[in-house]
Amino acid sequence: MKKVVIIGGVATGASTAARLRRLDETIEIVMIERGEYISFANCGLPYYLGDVITDRDELLIATPKLMKDRFHIDTRIHSEVTKINPFKNSVTIQSADRGTYEETYDYLVLAPGAKPIDFNFEEVSSDKVFTLRNMNDTDRIKTALDGVQKAIIIGGGYIGVEMAENLVEKNIEVTLVQALPHILAPFDDDMVILAENEMRKKGINLLLSEMAVALHETEVGVSLELESGNVVEGNILISAIGVVPDTDFLKDSGVSLGKRGHILTNEQMQTNIPNIYAGGDAVTVTDFVTKQVTAVPLAGPANKHGRIIADNICGIPSKYKDTQGSTVIKVFDLTLAATGNTERQLSLQGIEHQTIIIHPNHHAVYYPGAEQITLKLIFNSSGAILGAQAIGIAGVVKRIDVIATLLRMGGTIYDLTELELCYAPPYGSAKDPVNFAGYVAENVLTKKTDLVHPRELENIKDNPNIVVLDVRTLGERNFGKVDGSIHINVNDLRDHLDELDKEKEYWIYCAVGVRAYVAERILKQHGFQCKNIIGGYKTISALGLLVP
Amino acid sequence: MKKVVIIGGVATGASTAARLRRLDETIEIVMIERGEYISFANCGLPYYLGDVITDRDELLIATPKLMKDRFHIDTRIHSEVTKINPFKNSVTIQSADRGTYEETYDYLVLAPGAKPIDFNFEEVSSDKVFTLRNMNDTDRIKTALDGVQKAIIIGGGYIGVEMAENLVEKNIEVTLVQALPHILAPFDDDMVILAENEMRKKGINLLLSEMAVALHETEVGVSLELESGNVVEGNILISAIGVVPDTDFLKDSGVSLGKRGHILTNEQMQTNIPNIYAGGDAVTVTDFVTKQVTAVPLAGPANKHGRIIADNICGIPSKYKDTQGSTVIKVFDLTLAATGNTERQLSLQGIEHQTIIIHPNHHAVYYPGAEQITLKLIFNSSGAILGAQAIGIAGVVKRIDVIATLLRMGGTIYDLTELELCYAPPYGSAKDPVNFAGYVAENVLTKKTDLVHPRELENIKDNPNIVVLDVRTLGERNFGKVDGSIHINVNDLRDHLDELDKEKEYWIYCAVGVRAYVAERILKQHGFQCKNIIGGYKTISALGLLVP
Repeated sequence: MKKVVIIGGVATGASTAARLRRLDETIEIVMIERGEYISFANCGLPYYLGDVITDRDELLIATPKLMKDRFHIDTRIHSEVTKINPFKNSVTIQSADRGTYEETYDYLVLAPGAKPIDFNFEEVSSDKVFTLRNMNDTDRIKTALDGVQKAIIIGGGYIGVEMAENLVEKNIEVTLVQALPHILAPFDDDMVILAENEMRKKGINLLLSEMAVALHETEVGVSLELESGNVVEGNILISAIGVVPDTDFLKDSGVSLGKRGHILTNEQMQTNIPNIYAGGDAVTVTDFVTKQVTAVPLAGPANKHGRIIADNICGIPSKYKDTQGSTVIKVFDLTLAATGNTERQLSLQGIEHQTIIIHPNHHAVYYPGAEQITLKLIFNSSGAILGAQAIGIAGVVKRIDVIATLLRMGGTIYDLTELELCYAPPYGSAKDPVNFAGYVAENVLTKKTDLVHPRELENIKDNPNIVVLDVRTLGERNFGKVDGSIHINVNDLRDHLDELDKEKEYWIYCAVGVRAYVAERILKQHGFQCKNIIGGYKTISALGLLVP
Repeated sequence: MKKVVIIGGVATGASTAARLRRLDETIEIVMIERGEYISFANCGLPYYLGDVITDRDELLIATPKLMKDRFHIDTRIHSEVTKINPFKNSVTIQSADRGTYEETYDYLVLAPGAKPIDFNFEEVSSDKVFTLRNMNDTDRIKTALDGVQKAIIIGGGYIGVEMAENLVEKNIEVTLVQALPHILAPFDDDMVILAENEMRKKGINLLLSEMAVALHETEVGVSLELESGNVVEGNILISAIGVVPDTDFLKDSGVSLGKRGHILTNEQMQTNIPNIYAGGDAVTVTDFVTKQVTAVPLAGPANKHGRIIADNICGIPSKYKDTQGSTVIKVFDLTLAATGNTERQLSLQGIEHQTIIIHPNHHAVYYPGAEQITLKLIFNSSGAILGAQAIGIAGVVKRIDVIATLLRMGGTIYDLTELELCYAPPYGSAKDPVNFAGYVAENVLTKKTDLVHPRELENIKDNPNIVVLDVRTLGERNFGKVDGSIHINVNDLRDHLDELDKEKEYWIYCAVGVRAYVAERILKQHGFQCKNIIGGYKTISALGLLVP
């Protein structure tokens, strides 16, 4: 009879345990959890704090009793593994009720997860400064929120942004401090800026490129000093500056760890010690696109790891095939979703890439309720898809999930044009936004269009050889335009060719890029030099680039 | 200078024209349209009749003036091509203003579309019987609807069902008569029954397996006699019994047509006559899954055809790669989506396949608003995906679009388990419904589970060797159960093994199949014979199969 000890009772741990049992009634399964709760809804915690989820019990997905009754699993809560002893095939456990003892195993599964990075200003009382990882943190914050009028959040990652939204929805004044120039690293600046605008519109005091340097206790809470000299006041502070793998107990265990403490595994999720497996937020994974080693703390991969570990322990060959980083976050009425790499990551790694940004409607424009999606596609010169990001009010996740599927299958932008998706007016368009993205990308690679990013507008301010050409209607232009641009409605363009100069280069824009492409094709075929400004006026104005 | 004549100004025709112009400023493009309108929103017509779309102008996507101004296209409306003369490279056109004349071409594009099948009871006045194809039909029905209290619709395809919904939303009493046992052929009976139940709940008098035999005019409208002897009364009748290609003008033209009048093309959408192309609802396509020749009148493929035709005329090699039949329809609050083949089609063609039905939530169950999706996956014994269907209130299309993408890329159920989709509580689950479908299918192919369809319950009524085992809670069982089933809560199963009989076979069900699988694994490993009833009590009860 095999005996498996699992360290950690949440995503990877609980998945491993349940799958093990479904595969084999005879295995002895012991699941060790430091906290009081197993299998709780991590990703739901900010929404419980925001009273979107009102019943705390909803967060507790599986209890030790259920694991016992249904799966015959010996769950030990309030039990911390302080040390593993691979040479003895045992772990040392410290528990509230049983003191310190050893438990032997045939197979050990490491699923300790990640913990928040320590916030370093320790002179402030603990009832004013919080991190959010588990049910206990959640309960503490829930209590502390009573009477809070102002909150400071440090960190513009998922937890920081979700907490900001949820506290604002509770009418708390929120300042979000982010050290980097933009929030939400899985998105490029030209996309996430739309979410930043939305957050500011909803009243969040969003401080970007601001580094916290000191925290002081005040009569009503805390005061945070920033490197810029700015000072932010709040009743409480929530620190969400990132996570690190919770693997201190593995130091000197013989299990190979990476530089930042992540557990290293092979594709079978097996560590360097053959009967020890690991998964979840504490391990490194390979990036699906760049094949670089990385760490991506996401719930989807963590759950997959559990199944793969259980299979391998039971002799079923099973491999984890890298992480794309598919991700989504709600930011008030907006949804932001992404898969693959960002332009920023690819540039940093020197990987050749091209991008397009389009703004199609999420369903037929004539059916009521059509909303624009801003969709960015990143691909290389052979057409391989490297990443995609989308933001909008509706239909956003669907498009990224489709592209994530194509990316996983090694698809190209040419495949994107051929996808046959479901269409009826309430749901999409005969040419779906993802087909459309494929068409535009194909036009780029086949040189039918030359794109230029709106950022470049700043570099041509004083260049007399480049003319910005607005091909929208006069009505649209009256609502805002690129300063210094000339105007010819695309529908009249053929009649005004003699007013244009073949020695100059025309940078064309319309509202979203479609008419600009028509204009570009007309001009190019009549011998003019021209480029199409990526994303059109919608992207230009979002970036605040109105003065070339 | 090339000259292209296009017959038909809607999906394929208009797409071809616009793409041709974007590729080449010099081509002379003549687009011939029999009706008054080009490029109108076919798929929106039922919603305009239901006052969901209130502005008629919204339906008119492109006008001849726009085609002229922006694309320099010579659109001729009220012009019917009565004959094509391939040997002279010309078409004969009959028009209101110019009489009969010939127009020559270098390339001819056939995009005539499909027309409603004639309704054969001609003694009834034309202001009481309608079909729905174009703007004129729409205007006629719109006028006729004034004062209508009861409407009869014949045909349970898309148009019939969409019209039924839209008329009910206008408080018109609707009888829908369908000759087949179920509506909406792209769905299997065990799926579409959920939509039929919904339609009845919304007050539609849905008559299935009822064939119309005679229609009589009455004082207030029409009276429809059915083969069963039933008679249905209404103020108007809308016939939506299907479409046929509108290709009569091609008879004896030399262009090869199929048995049912469809134009035959190669992958380049080229007919047997090299300078004549065709696309849209009037052509045959190859089924992506079975590789059989078929005809699938859908807007997505029609638009793709247009682009491919234009590319080929301009010397850009481009092929159409078969039709999956990805499709979606709104039925009141429900969405039904499908891709690939149905179980019914595969059985008819003798193609080996297996199916599963699951009912996962569309997003994390603890986040408010989670709705069940009923998802059916069809695959073969090597794991290739052959089709999928889903029905539910939310998140339905996304899952079918993802599976459609995987199907297009030749993916298997094993790929389905590995897909990494976007997850946050408002949008999905860490194990997405499509991953989950992959897991269940994998369990089928690796013999971890043996499934049996609820339909089989009818065949075991008198079989003493088969016992139906309900493993839900007593609370659930009190709301309804399979008659004659025994009950053991899955959580107590290991304690009751001695009450079971190894000579008998247990058919297990829970609410949706998850707990039944756990029970099946327990029983199998303890030496019992058992099967899991596909889709659990949710599917059993939807099919009305409560008595084994």
